[in-house]
Amino acid sequence: MPQIKLSLDEVDALARAAFRKVGCDEANASALTRTVWRAERDGAKSHGLFRVPALVAALASGKANKTATPKITKRAGVVLQVDGDQGYAPTSHDVGLPELIEVAKTHGMAGLAIRDVFHFAALWPEVETICDAGLVGYAMTASPPYMAMPGGKRRVFGTNPIAWGWPRNEGAPVIYDMATAHSARGEVMMAARDGHDVPLGAGIDADGNPTTDPAKILEGAQLPFGGYKGAALALMVDLMAGPMIGEKTSLGIEAADDGVGPALGGQTIFAFNPEMFGGADAMVGGEALFADLKSDPGVRLPGDRRAAVRPTTPTDGVEIPASLHEAIQGLT
Amino acid sequence: MPQIKLSLDEVDALARAAFRKVGCDEANASALTRTVWRAERDGAKSHGLFRVPALVAALASGKANKTATPKITKRAGVVLQVDGDQGYAPTSHDVGLPELIEVAKTHGMAGLAIRDVFHFAALWPEVETICDAGLVGYAMTASPPYMAMPGGKRRVFGTNPIAWGWPRNEGAPVIYDMATAHSARGEVMMAARDGHDVPLGAGIDADGNPTTDPAKILEGAQLPFGGYKGAALALMVDLMAGPMIGEKTSLGIEAADDGVGPALGGQTIFAFNPEMFGGADAMVGGEALFADLKSDPGVRLPGDRRAAVRPTTPTDGVEIPASLHEAIQGLT
Repeated sequence: MPQIKLSLDEVDALARAAFRKVGCDEANASALTRTVWRAERDGAKSHGLFRVPALVAALASGKANKTATPKITKRAGVVLQVDGDQGYAPTSHDVGLPELIEVAKTHGMAGLAIRDVFHFAALWPEVETICDAGLVGYAMTASPPYMAMPGGKRRVFGTNPIAWGWPRNEGAPVIYDMATAHSARGEVMMAARDGHDVPLGAGIDADGNPTTDPAKILEGAQLPFGGYKGAALALMVDLMAGPMIGEKTSLGIEAADDGVGPALGGQTIFAFNPEMFGGADAMVGGEALFADLKSDPGVRLPGDRRAAVRPTTPTDGVEIPASLHEAIQGLT
Repeated sequence: MPQIKLSLDEVDALARAAFRKVGCDEANASALTRTVWRAERDGAKSHGLFRVPALVAALASGKANKTATPKITKRAGVVLQVDGDQGYAPTSHDVGLPELIEVAKTHGMAGLAIRDVFHFAALWPEVETICDAGLVGYAMTASPPYMAMPGGKRRVFGTNPIAWGWPRNEGAPVIYDMATAHSARGEVMMAARDGHDVPLGAGIDADGNPTTDPAKILEGAQLPFGGYKGAALALMVDLMAGPMIGEKTSLGIEAADDGVGPALGGQTIFAFNPEMFGGADAMVGGEALFADLKSDPGVRLPGDRRAAVRPTTPTDGVEIPASLHEAIQGLT
């Protein structure tokens, strides 16, 4: 596949032009562009420019709001509620995160309940924004069901990801961003396309039997990572990013959606201020632990791969398939 | 092994007498007794009367404070800090949870940073106390290291459990309470004693090689559940129940401890008020999801086993080994 090299500025310009051309206003185009740009900067290709055609398609169809104007609709104690206006989540982050951070700094912790948004991306960018303010961040979102409970046959949960991050005085924060599913949906789809097996535990066929055949899993259901423990985490996400904030569960998202493109749902984000919890030297304690962990060769910290790529792309640029470059330029 | 049957009142009296005899004041004896009693009531035998001899030993040695008087030492925004006075954690829960619940009800969410305690029990009892007030509860604690990171050889994390619970209008709340380790330490020890293998993934030998031999894992290290994802959760617990609240990490707990009996550390507990997050009908949404999940035969919700036992023990009583009954009666 012929590749083309782009500078990070060119990544920005390419994505921004596509979002503007389809009719996004400045706020929505900028929020989307920045999310795509951050993914490309960190080598997280599956959330980078690769996503632009699908994002634009959902905007073009009118499903995702090109000119969403999210608003803080309620302030209750340390909780903020944002109405996402059926736009993509990053536009809501721009509206909600600054005040979330402010409230957490002042009161020790804070929560952000985002409703009526399309969450298309990784969760680490919003968590990183919180960490960059010296706070601990925590985010989750539900999605249409692809995953069964252990012992069950029916799809009941999305891949329901969770991200959590710890701030650092220097360098990128330590952030995990994980699906509660055993495998990313894309991995199963690519294995089916390429005719490879997937590991046992990734999913079940339509009759509920464990299988390593990705095509059968796509007809059946994926499974959570770590058996019933991962399922418990998926359940937590479903409830905390769903009914806890007046939003839908994974099953509710499916029931309300037309099945074409992304589906509307909620996202819940928390921020914690270590200083007010008693950890005046929290960063010191964190750095000591990271140094201890790294002294064992072979150990990787969450986000290490992204952190390793980040310093290289401003000078080296990024590569994308020439066909993708052409496709994005042709979007209207 | 000959068994003896006890009523729940007799469970209370047996435990209470042992804690009083070793010198606990009323507050500490009551808090410990209630924790043991709740475990027996729910059939959670490994956290019931079985634990009393070890609890009493640490009190008798003077390591755990028989007359701990935990105090709320700081109120900062929606965060409470409790100094556990080197007692067992349940005495600190009695002091901190009522105000945590009050703050979360008023302000939407709240955090409780408990320092300088011995956490010997399951985490679901304190989460259940929060759920019984109509709130979502979340708790975590670190412990001396038994577990390596994937790719590493050294023990760096305790079994670092997390518990989370969702309130219900009727019946027991839905609560998961999970070690972030693949297996409970006790399971590995019992397998070693009985000469059984453990599943691959439970741990590594001293050279870092995967093994199913529990004796080699006890010399080496346990592993997290679900590979690097479980390790990320263990890391989160280590930081949020450690440096975030001015407490020690798993490695720090080990460094400060004499290695005999329980080890001093911290616990972090959160409470969330769904009504203020926007979920005025949160309980309705939760019940609908639980009903949906249960419609798939074979699916169990977290805590189902405890919830099934709970209604039976008030009439049927509980059984414990006669030797344990005798041992507890003989404690001084």
